[in-house]
This record gives sequence, C-alpha cells and structure tokens, in this order.
Amino acid sequence: MTEPNELTAVETVAAVAQGKLTAEAVVRSCLARTDAREHEVKAWVTLDRDGAIRQAQELDKGPSRGPLHGVTIGVKDIIETRDLPTTSGSPIYAGWMSMRDAAVVSMCRQAGAVILGKTVTTEYASRHPGPTRNPHNLAHTPGGSSSGSAAGVADRMVHASFGTQTGGSIVRAASYCGIVGYKPSYNAVPTAGVKPLAPSLDTVGPMTRSVADAALVYSVVAADPEAAKVTAAKPRRIGLCRSPAWPEAEAGLDKAFEEARKRLEAAGYSVTDRELPASMQDILAVHTTVIEWEGYIALAAERIGAPDKLSATMRETQANGAKHGAAAHQAALGRAGRMRLELDALFDEVDVIVTPAAPGEAPEGLGSTGKAVFNSPWTLMHVPCICLPGMRGPKGLPISMQAVGKRGDDRRLLAHAMALEPVLR
Amino acid sequence: MTEPNELTAVETVAAVAQGKLTAEAVVRSCLARTDAREHEVKAWVTLDRDGAIRQAQELDKGPSRGPLHGVTIGVKDIIETRDLPTTSGSPIYAGWMSMRDAAVVSMCRQAGAVILGKTVTTEYASRHPGPTRNPHNLAHTPGGSSSGSAAGVADRMVHASFGTQTGGSIVRAASYCGIVGYKPSYNAVPTAGVKPLAPSLDTVGPMTRSVADAALVYSVVAADPEAAKVTAAKPRRIGLCRSPAWPEAEAGLDKAFEEARKRLEAAGYSVTDRELPASMQDILAVHTTVIEWEGYIALAAERIGAPDKLSATMRETQANGAKHGAAAHQAALGRAGRMRLELDALFDEVDVIVTPAAPGEAPEGLGSTGKAVFNSPWTLMHVPCICLPGMRGPKGLPISMQAVGKRGDDRRLLAHAMALEPVLR
Repeated sequence: MTEPNELTAVETVAAVAQGKLTAEAVVRSCLARTDAREHEVKAWVTLDRDGAIRQAQELDKGPSRGPLHGVTIGVKDIIETRDLPTTSGSPIYAGWMSMRDAAVVSMCRQAGAVILGKTVTTEYASRHPGPTRNPHNLAHTPGGSSSGSAAGVADRMVHASFGTQTGGSIVRAASYCGIVGYKPSYNAVPTAGVKPLAPSLDTVGPMTRSVADAALVYSVVAADPEAAKVTAAKPRRIGLCRSPAWPEAEAGLDKAFEEARKRLEAAGYSVTDRELPASMQDILAVHTTVIEWEGYIALAAERIGAPDKLSATMRETQANGAKHGAAAHQAALGRAGRMRLELDALFDEVDVIVTPAAPGEAPEGLGSTGKAVFNSPWTLMHVPCICLPGMRGPKGLPISMQAVGKRGDDRRLLAHAMALEPVLR
Repeated sequence: MTEPNELTAVETVAAVAQGKLTAEAVVRSCLARTDAREHEVKAWVTLDRDGAIRQAQELDKGPSRGPLHGVTIGVKDIIETRDLPTTSGSPIYAGWMSMRDAAVVSMCRQAGAVILGKTVTTEYASRHPGPTRNPHNLAHTPGGSSSGSAAGVADRMVHASFGTQTGGSIVRAASYCGIVGYKPSYNAVPTAGVKPLAPSLDTVGPMTRSVADAALVYSVVAADPEAAKVTAAKPRRIGLCRSPAWPEAEAGLDKAFEEARKRLEAAGYSVTDRELPASMQDILAVHTTVIEWEGYIALAAERIGAPDKLSATMRETQANGAKHGAAAHQAALGRAGRMRLELDALFDEVDVIVTPAAPGEAPEGLGSTGKAVFNSPWTLMHVPCICLPGMRGPKGLPISMQAVGKRGDDRRLLAHAMALEPVLR
C-alpha cells in the first residue's frame, strides 16, 4: 500500500473517512518521511511533532470534522499560529508568539486538518533566502518566498501547505519544486494574521500535489464550498502567452513552452498565441513600484526599530523602495486598476491563459530564490494563477507552465486546470 | 497663555522647537485635561500615563527628533503597540500584547510623537459600540468605529489620533465630534499591525483639529514629506454632491448642505451640483457585499475559536456576511474596480467634491454609532476624504461636510481642504 504521506489530500480524506487509515497513522507517516529527509531538505522552521500527533488523536476520537479531516498542512512562517512561533524568517521575530491563529489556519483546523508545523519563508516573504533546498537537487534553490511550503509538499513530508504571493512566491516555488501552487484571486482568501509585505498584492494560497487538492484547500479558506465540487472542464480557447518577461527566459524554457503547445494541440485544444496589449508592456515596472514602496512602508517598524537585524538584501530592498515615493506609488496603483480592466477584456477572447510559471529550472545555489518576473504581472492583475508541473529542463529539474484565469473566476480556472493538468504533466 | 493641550499639533511642534514648551509640559497638560474629563467621555481603553511622561522626558533631553516632536497621539485600539495591549474592542483580546508596533506607530515615534495611549474602538472596528460619549453632549454617540480617537481629540485630551475607515469610521466619527478626520487614498498609509476588517477597504488615517495637522501626521505615516509642505489652494471647480445616500439624510442635513453651498458661493467659488453617474447608483450595495463578506472571512479565527465572545451585533453581522458568498464578493470587487475609473473621469470635471460627512447630528444614545452611508461609497472608491466641521444641527451638535479628492491625489485634496476649511467652519 502507498504510504499515507504519499497520498494526495483528496485520497487521504477518503481513506480516513472509509476507516482505512487513522489521522494518527497519516501524521506519523508524514513525520517519518520528514525525519528521513528534513536534515537535507530543511523545509521546516518549527515541526510540531507532539502537537500534530495530539491533533490527530483528537480527530480520531470523533466523526469527520469537515472536508480536510486527516489532511496534514504546513504553514508558511509569516502566517500566525496560536501554538507555535511565527518568525517571518527574521531574527527580529525569533520566538515571537502571536497567541492567535491566522484566519486560514483556524478555517483549516475547523475543517479537520492537522497543522504539522511552520515552513521556511524568506525574510518577510521578500528576497533574503532561508536554508531550504530543492528536493529534486539539493544544490538548487526550491524557489521562494514560500520555500519550505514548496519543498515540504514536493518531498511528500506534508500533503498541502500555505504559501503567499506578492511577486511570484507561490507559483514560482511550486514550479521549481514540480508541484501545484495556486494563487487565488486577490482577497478571495483572508490575509488576517499574515505578515503584510505589500497589501495591494499579498495573496494567500495552497501548495499541493494536484489541482483537486488545491481546489479542496481553497474551498475551505475561501469559504467557497462550491469550489470543492469543481470537476474538469475543457477550455474552448487557450491563449498561449510568452508575457512581457520573455526576455528573461532561461535555458529550456522555449523548448518547454513549445512542448506545452504541442501537448495541448495534440489533445485537441484550440491554442492561439496571445500577448498582453501594448499598453501593458511596462507592467513589470508598475509591479516593482507597488511591491517596493509598500514593502518600504509596511516594514517601517522593523526598519526603524531594529535596522541591524535586517539582512543586507532587505536593507537594499528598503532603500530601493524609499526612492519611489508616495506619489509614484499611487500613480502605479491607478495604472494597475486600468490594466485590470484591459485584461478582463482579453478573457472575452480566451477562456484561460497558459504561460510560463518561472524563467526556467530552479537556479543553482541557495543565495537567491530566483526571479518573479513571470509571476508578478499576474499578481498585480489580481487574477487567479495555478502552477501546472510536468516538464523538465536541461538539468533534469522541473519546468512548469501556469494557467491564468479571469479575475474573480477561480472556480472556472480550477475546472480548466483540472482538464489541463494531465495534458501538461 | 493657551494650555498646551488646546494647541494644534502644528502649534505644539513650533512651541516646543522654540523652547516655549517642553514635551513633558505638553504631555502633563494633556493628562490633566484627560483627568478632568475622562470619567465622562471615556475615550481611552489604556492611558499610558507614566509611559507618556517618560517618552516626553526622553524627547526633552535631545534635539528635535522630527516633524511630530512633542505632539501627543492616541492610537485606536485595533492598532498594535509594543508596550500596551491591543484589545480590538473585544473580550477575546483582553490584555493581548502583540509586542510590536504597527508601522504607523513606529513612524510617529521616530518623528518625535508621544503615544498617550489606546483609544476606544467598536468591536473589531465594526458596529458593536464601546463606552465612549460625545464630548458635545454626553447623551449622544461620538460615532464610530474610531470612537475614542474622535472624542479624545475633540475634547482636547490629545492633539491627534489614528482612526481606521472601512465604512465611515474616520469621517463620520469626526463629523459627529466636530473635528477634522482624514481618510487617505487606499494603501497610502501602511496597515501593517492593524487588525483587518475588510482588507479591500481598510484605511488608516489621522483625526485632528485642523487640516494642517492632518497633513502633518499624514506626511509622516505616508512617508510623504511633500504633504507637510502643502499650503491652501483654492479649487477652481467644486462639485456639490448629495450622493446616493441622500434618502438617509436626517434632520438638519438639508439646511447644512445649502448653508455650505451659500458659504462657498459667498467666498467666490464656482459650485455646481454633481451626482454620481447612474451606473454607480447601487454603490452602497456593492460596498455592503465587500465589507460584510471580507469581515466574515477576516474574523474566521475569532468566530470559530470563541463564538460566545462575539457580541450579538457581531454574530448578526457575521451571519449577514456568510450569505453573500465568495462569487458575489468577487463580482462586487470587479464592479468597484470599474466604478473607480468612472469616478476618476468625474474629477476631470471638478477639482473637489463637497458632500455630507454623515447623515446629520450624532444620534442620541450609545447603542449605535450611526450610519456609514455617506462614507462607504467613497471608501469603496479608494479616494481621499476629509471631514471639514463647522456647522450645527437642530440639537446644537456638529454637522459637517467632507471634501473628496481624486484617488491618489492626496496632496491636492489637502491643499483644497485647507482653502475650504475656514469657509465652512
């Protein structure tokens, strides 16, 4: 029999509901896998071994608590948990206890999930990396900022995890680790109890090993039970989009992009090349203004209170942020609002956009978690994006596409992603 | 000589800089006023008497720390402070210490402000009121949700305070208490460390006794030093707007609105009636969907973890929120985005909108903090709004207009508000 840690979340819920597995057996299986691999992967800041077993034992005493009964979840360490520290990847928050659960954590517990622990994040979900390694090749970054959430799920330590995306922190890390990563529409999932980086962009979303798992977790934290009932629906018109980040494409991306086209066409889909309108060609610069300025003011207390405890990378990011100024930031927000309407119109012509999830394979080394340029335009547009893994680059590491849907139409994107998932995998 | 607590923030900074006053004398004056009045007004949850004196003594030891040197500030009790509890007006958070400063608090401390304490908020900045009374008539509400922040400033206990607005919680409370209340453009001021209610709307802003004071505090927390240099600039074209909330106008509002028109015309301004376009007539319903749904998911941890510690009002609000559903919420966000562009266009035709700040005078009794209907459309539009007090209603209580500016053009709104302030007062 497949070890419980290898199951998807959907399979786990079914197995526990049918009495084939106890929640405790599920948790112990995830912990055993973690014991075997964590010294190399380093996905966790805090692993709540005893707490997780206790949670599982409590679940096993009663009937199903809800749609996540028995599923293990890792929580990015900028997301608050009442019983574990939330360090935000910074020495300033070493041991910091908020004494409360973030909204998404509370919703998952209520639905029967077991919180396994807190996963490694870059410093404040920005650029300075943590120690996590890519399970596919330990010499490579897992991506970021949701580094531990991506690596833990990819390495079968945990069924699902939460990431957050302000630039590319869910989808890029998922791509590098070869898993599904779902950035929902903006504000579809509550950010209460999540350390803000750029509130105009910050989005919480699930990282999983299947689209169905992403839909399941999303349905709980978006309070949208309909999303859990979504089934695969073929998009009639697929727009294949290189995006304005194409000049940053790395080795293997072009080939993977054309391979995606080939697979989609071979499966009978109508695929046309679609690029963003000319009026949106500076979208990367607009995103940079928003994320850097908002990061500058959002982290004022840390910058003012303990400047020596910021990384050199963060000090540089803060200095860049300060240069934009309040007026440029507001102008960028205005531009973004107008661009969103233009992108809405593009979805009158295509049902879904398929576009690279990252510039290529996970870069070598742990000094950088890679570039968000293939993600930040969509994050700025507030549209739902989901990483669909399945290809490999020249070094044998994952290269992924992402499916991008219309703003607010998360259920439809999930349905299309379920249809595309086996085609691209 | 005027008592220091009676001075504006601008006057206080000047007096301290010129050596006419010490920061300690300023703080002691504010505390003396508070001692004389707090038993009736009940503006404070936590008054940091000793801490404020210590902060002032520290300031007096050195040169000017910055643009708020010696100014006293009250902090709405949903905004975190490293040294005082943050109760969010809820028994769930009784004594809760976050051990960190919200971004705005840290920015003010760095600029030389003295944090006097935490002011009364309604429960989670929603509807269930605290004990604060209106200083103009203790039998009336001060408005909400920034109740203590409004009353404390109006009653000369403190020079300035922070409120937050998701519906009408800054401008309406300012109107009822006869002070200036400034809701900046969305995300111009960091919300880090502020308990979220509806992140698509939540905005932090200063409550003061003059527009110049609002500009001064805003310049610090928006990291926009230019805003502190703004001087009065007459708007060429004023749009007088009854707004879609006009059917909710109460006794005295019609008269005050016409009085505002008369004063503006007598001062030589070009005033024309402007209403929101027909396509925006359901703006109040769109706002209701956003605030109630986001409040429902944002407060998930509190609702799930301690349902018996929510007020009956909050339980009702949560039940209303649950009815909207995720899809209706996303549709409402889409509508709001399109409406924002329509409103941008209206500002091609007028320089500023003048519109009621509240339905009328502060309602009698403390059971409700009044209606946000004259505020929530502008909050949804992300535009800057500033309450300009100066009129009185049939019961002798304040009735105010607000000036509304173009999204992102906070400096220009402040300049126009400085010009209109003496005309309307």
